[in-house]
Amino acid sequence: MGVEIERKFLVRGDAWRTLGAATLLRQGYLCADPERTVRVRIEGEQGVLTIKSKNEGASRGEWEYPLPLRDAEELLDRLCERPLVEKIRRRIDYQGFTWEVDEFLGENAGLVVAEIELPAEDTAFERPEWIGREVTGERRYYNSSLIRLPFSKWTTA
Amino acid sequence: MGVEIERKFLVRGDAWRTLGAATLLRQGYLCADPERTVRVRIEGEQGVLTIKSKNEGASRGEWEYPLPLRDAEELLDRLCERPLVEKIRRRIDYQGFTWEVDEFLGENAGLVVAEIELPAEDTAFERPEWIGREVTGERRYYNSSLIRLPFSKWTTA
Repeated sequence: MGVEIERKFLVRGDAWRTLGAATLLRQGYLCADPERTVRVRIEGEQGVLTIKSKNEGASRGEWEYPLPLRDAEELLDRLCERPLVEKIRRRIDYQGFTWEVDEFLGENAGLVVAEIELPAEDTAFERPEWIGREVTGERRYYNSSLIRLPFSKWTTA
Repeated sequence: MGVEIERKFLVRGDAWRTLGAATLLRQGYLCADPERTVRVRIEGEQGVLTIKSKNEGASRGEWEYPLPLRDAEELLDRLCERPLVEKIRRRIDYQGFTWEVDEFLGENAGLVVAEIELPAEDTAFERPEWIGREVTGERRYYNSSLIRLPFSKWTTA
């Protein structure tokens, strides 16, 4: 098991759009419980299965295994809960850390969040000017929540 | 994806107890939905993650991946739904097929079922004399159902 320590923020403006390489992620959930999630993701030509425990602060347990691309496609097409989540991810280096900026598509279009993975909960880091409000731990921003209540159906943001 | 074609039966008497090698299985579910199951199992020193689609007749889709033993132990101890399922499995060869006879322990003690995996839904096979009523497709006999309503709590069998 690894431990994932991650903080999540809303994103302001458009400056981030020209930074970092963009890749398309397509993912779905075999399990989207509050207690545990089982995610299937395709990034480029690579499939991956990721099991996560629930958050405790900014930390959660994570178990990750590569999946044959064909298996990942089958699981997304046939077995994962609907809807799937599609997003464009940009990896942007800034002051020694890498930000992952996720621009959601489909039913979650309009939502852009940025995540930074940290070695410890209290690690200090610099925020780029396009980083907005922190939403770490806010359940509705979880990808596993966005399949239940997509951003397009939120009444407040 | 593989397709698992399997028929399940109750077991009569005790003649099966002296046949075949016995191994202990310990397993739990990350997902026990009617639509899909995600199972973690330890058999001997081997961990395995198995994803199954719902039954259509005696068939269901199956995706299976080896897990490091330590990961399987972590997932069973920390993340799987309670209770876990423990059972003694005996593999018994009979007339060209292998029967798996599962003797459940713990909250499911008293339940013994036998499964036979077939190459096609309509494959003919001989039944040993200790094979009882067929329960293929009866949801309450699913291992994923036995964690919700264990055999010891059934009012009729």
